[in-house]
Amino acid sequence: MRIVGVARGAGVEVASLAEDGSVTVIAGLEEFWSDPEGFLARPPSGETLTDARFVPPVLPGARVICIGLNYLEHVAEGSYRDAELPEYPTLFARWTQSLTVDGAEIPVPADEDGLDWEGEIVAWVGRPLVDASPEEALAAVVGYSAFNDVTARRAQKLTSQWILGKNADSSGPLGPMVPAAEVGDLRDGLRVRTRVNGETVQDGNTTEMVYTVGETLAHISRTFTVRPGDLLATGTPSGVGYARTPRWLLQPGDVVEVEVDRLGVLRNTIVDGKQRLLSREPGREGAA
Amino acid sequence: MRIVGVARGAGVEVASLAEDGSVTVIAGLEEFWSDPEGFLARPPSGETLTDARFVPPVLPGARVICIGLNYLEHVAEGSYRDAELPEYPTLFARWTQSLTVDGAEIPVPADEDGLDWEGEIVAWVGRPLVDASPEEALAAVVGYSAFNDVTARRAQKLTSQWILGKNADSSGPLGPMVPAAEVGDLRDGLRVRTRVNGETVQDGNTTEMVYTVGETLAHISRTFTVRPGDLLATGTPSGVGYARTPRWLLQPGDVVEVEVDRLGVLRNTIVDGKQRLLSREPGREGAA
Repeated sequence: MRIVGVARGAGVEVASLAEDGSVTVIAGLEEFWSDPEGFLARPPSGETLTDARFVPPVLPGARVICIGLNYLEHVAEGSYRDAELPEYPTLFARWTQSLTVDGAEIPVPADEDGLDWEGEIVAWVGRPLVDASPEEALAAVVGYSAFNDVTARRAQKLTSQWILGKNADSSGPLGPMVPAAEVGDLRDGLRVRTRVNGETVQDGNTTEMVYTVGETLAHISRTFTVRPGDLLATGTPSGVGYARTPRWLLQPGDVVEVEVDRLGVLRNTIVDGKQRLLSREPGREGAA
Repeated sequence: MRIVGVARGAGVEVASLAEDGSVTVIAGLEEFWSDPEGFLARPPSGETLTDARFVPPVLPGARVICIGLNYLEHVAEGSYRDAELPEYPTLFARWTQSLTVDGAEIPVPADEDGLDWEGEIVAWVGRPLVDASPEEALAAVVGYSAFNDVTARRAQKLTSQWILGKNADSSGPLGPMVPAAEVGDLRDGLRVRTRVNGETVQDGNTTEMVYTVGETLAHISRTFTVRPGDLLATGTPSGVGYARTPRWLLQPGDVVEVEVDRLGVLRNTIVDGKQRLLSREPGREGAA
C-alpha cells in the first residue's frame, strides 16, 4: 500500500495509490490522523479518483523534525568533522510549508549558486508520545517515506542555526508513505541512494545510522509531546554536493532522484528562482 | 483594538477584545488571514461572545521564525559572547504547536531544572513576501504582540542546533495582536520588561535591536516565501536566567510576566512536568 494526499476543492484527503496508478480515498486529512493505525488496518473504502492532484498527506500544523549528522561518513565529510559527535541527535526544524511531492519543481532561491541534495527516510508518527521509551516510540511509527532534504547551503551556513537554508520553497519533496508493517525495522538495513541526472551521488544504508528512530523520538518526547502526523527525517548518508571537490550543486534543469529500498523512487526537477516571483501574482501558486 | 483567537466547537475564529473584556467575532481563522488588512480596517461585525476560550489566532501551518541574539547586551551575556556578530540575523524555528496564550500554564519538561524566560515582541505578517525590499517587508506587518520565548535551556544546548529546547509544550505564550497602525515603528522605541514573581529581570528597549523587522523579513524572503499569518519573534534583551550568577530558572508556582509598551502584559504560571503526562489521557489536553 502507498499512502498519498490528494487535494480536491478546499480540502485534502488521504488516499491509497495502487500499482496501476488508481487512487482510492481513505479519509479526510484530519480524520485519517485521528486514527492512522485504524485506517491503515482496513482496506480503503472511499471513492476511486481518476484525476488526482497529489499533495503531501501532512497536517499543516505537523512538525517536521530533522536529524542532522546521523550517518558517520556524512559527519566526516562536512563542516562538523572536527567536532565531537554529540551524545544526542542534532535536531533542526522544517515547517510543513517547505514540503512538496514526487514530480514537483524546486526553484533555486535568489542568492544561491544552486541547491544541494540530501536523500533520506522520513518516519511518520501515529500516536502521541510523552516521556516515551524507545520501544514505545518505535511502535508509534505508522509508516516511512523517501525524502529529499534539499538544502540552500549558503542560507544554511550564514549563522550558527541552519533553518533558513532548510526551508526554501518546495525544498522538501516527500514520497508516498509505506506502512511500517511493510517496511520493517530500519536497523535491518535499507539502501538509500541519490542520483543526479542518472549519476549516483549518495549510496548509503540505514545500518550506518548513529541515532535510531525509536531513541530519537523518545528523546524528543521528553521535551515536547510528539503528535500523530508529526514527521522525523532521519538524516542523510555521505555524498552531498557541497562537500565535494569541486563543489557540485543542483542547477535549473537537473533531475534529482532519491531511491530507498521498499519506499520507491522520488524524482524532482530543479527550476529557476524566477518561478518564486510568479507565485506572488494573484491566482498563481508555486508548484507546491 | 486587541485581536485574539477564540475556539468554539471544532473551529477557531479571530475576534476583537475590548477594554471591558467583551469579545466580538471578526472572521474565521482562514478567512481572516486571507485579508488581514481588510478585516483590521473595518469595525468587527460578528457575534459578541460572553464566554470565550482564547487560543492564539495563528494558522496551524504558519511559521514562527525567531531571531536569536538581536539585543547586543543579550549577546554579551550568553554562550555566543566570544563569537563575531554575524552579518545576518541568527534564525531559529518554533512550530505553532508550542504556542499558547496569556494565562496558560507552562510545564517544566522532565529533564530540565526549570525554564528560562525571554520577553520579546512578535511581528505578524499580512502579505506574501518574495524577494522583498526591507520597506515592502515592513509595510506587510499587520500587528505586534508581546511574547515569551520560554526556553528549556538544557535541551537547547545539547547540540549545535537550538530547536528542541525552543519547542517545549506551551512554551510560547503570545499576547493579543495590536494592529501595526496603533504600535508605530519598533525603531522609535518600545520598552520590553520581564518580571518573575513581581521582580524585574529584563528591562530593554527595541532601539537596541541589531536587525530590524523589515530587514529580517526581506532577508528571509530571499530564501522562502513569507506567507500571511507567519510570525517573526524579534529576540530578547539581556537579563535571561541562565546567564546569571547564580543561575535562576523558573520553577513550578512561579509567575512570569512580559510587559511591552502599547502591547500590554502577558502573564503565565509555571507548573510541574507531570501535567504533560496527564495530557496523554484520552479527552484531556494540556493547557495549550
